Amino acid sequence: MARSNYRPPKIPEMTIRRLSVYTRCLVQLEEDGVKTVSSTELAERFSLNSAQVRKDLAYFGEFGVRGIGYYVSGLKAELKRILGLDREWAVALVGFGNLGSALFHYKGFGRQGFRIAVVIDDDPGKIGREVDGVPIVSSRDMAREIKARAVQIAIVAVPPEAAQIVTEQLVAAGIKAVLNFAPTRLRVARDIRLKNVDLSIELETLSFYLAKGGR
Amino acid sequence: MARSNYRPPKIPEMTIRRLSVYTRCLVQLEEDGVKTVSSTELAERFSLNSAQVRKDLAYFGEFGVRGIGYYVSGLKAELKRILGLDREWAVALVGFGNLGSALFHYKGFGRQGFRIAVVIDDDPGKIGREVDGVPIVSSRDMAREIKARAVQIAIVAVPPEAAQIVTEQLVAAGIKAVLNFAPTRLRVARDIRLKNVDLSIELETLSFYLAKGGR
Repeated sequence: MARSNYRPPKIPEMTIRRLSVYTRCLVQLEEDGVKTVSSTELAERFSLNSAQVRKDLAYFGEFGVRGIGYYVSGLKAELKRILGLDREWAVALVGFGNLGSALFHYKGFGRQGFRIAVVIDDDPGKIGREVDGVPIVSSRDMAREIKARAVQIAIVAVPPEAAQIVTEQLVAAGIKAVLNFAPTRLRVARDIRLKNVDLSIELETLSFYLAKGGR
Repeated sequence: MARSNYRPPKIPEMTIRRLSVYTRCLVQLEEDGVKTVSSTELAERFSLNSAQVRKDLAYFGEFGVRGIGYYVSGLKAELKRILGLDREWAVALVGFGNLGSALFHYKGFGRQGFRIAVVIDDDPGKIGREVDGVPIVSSRDMAREIKARAVQIAIVAVPPEAAQIVTEQLVAAGIKAVLNFAPTRLRVARDIRLKNVDLSIELETLSFYLAKGGR
């Protein structure tokens, strides 16, 4: 194969999710004062699959040191860099109802470097207000705000019937990635990353085990 | 191997998650009037992996018919039964702040047969009230309510510092499965199913792709 035709292997999305999980485990180990860890120890302590850990990491390089394992702080820093967590991301939150408000106050986002820079809602009672210093603007002003604040990621937390049109406005305004909480199927162009969060799937993994146990 | 020692293969949790996704695809096909579908068609239409589809389904039986594929309605019904979605589950929601309130009103749960039967919150301004006909009770009364309503599943949406104690109370009251939204690591006995929802992981799969694109 000619060098110019080389394409890196496609990385499964589940591998990316697991990198996030590994990063959390490494943060925990670091807090506990652990300096080095083998894939087997990591797997045992956090109920992971050690072969899976090695395979996932192998997509990105050779991080282990023979006879030592992984350096906890070093691997954590590498994974954060790979996940884009070595920088801050400005995020637009669209929809400031119950769910939007809960997501705004969700502690986990800020901790990972996701900063909600602007809230978009068309409720006249909300437009022009601020929440913890973040402005609430109408969808009419979203393009200007998104460009001014260099926002690339949007969280969609509007009712399902409004989600598609809002997403199209976001993309037109320059958004590159959308995290959708509205229980509806969105259509976006191929170059836009779309991730749907379906909270009932989480409950279904639980009912599966309960149903099985009951039989 | 003696018959009595036979153990069914352990089913990966990701397989269970994907069954939920397949069920949604089948519902969509049924709405579109499609009667039969091959694993290849299913994969193409919903951007799935056809070999993965066949492998996931093979854990539970032989659902395909040679030359026809899968019967959409039949397979949907089978998957719903496997996932425990052929019945209603009473759910306790603990914590009725922003997130709890958003989860209470989340349309997706009811649609899949998860009915919030009781809300638990220790805010004196909320105890004794009802929300859409569902009572809000204090944690002091949770054991009685959980038993009376035959609740097996609980959603934990309390602040992180309260999550462990609340979970212990839930388990003592007879809860068998916990869906935890609090950004903290919970400890439960082995026979309790625990699922942590970490909303920032979803954002991290997006930042991974954006970070990669930017380099």
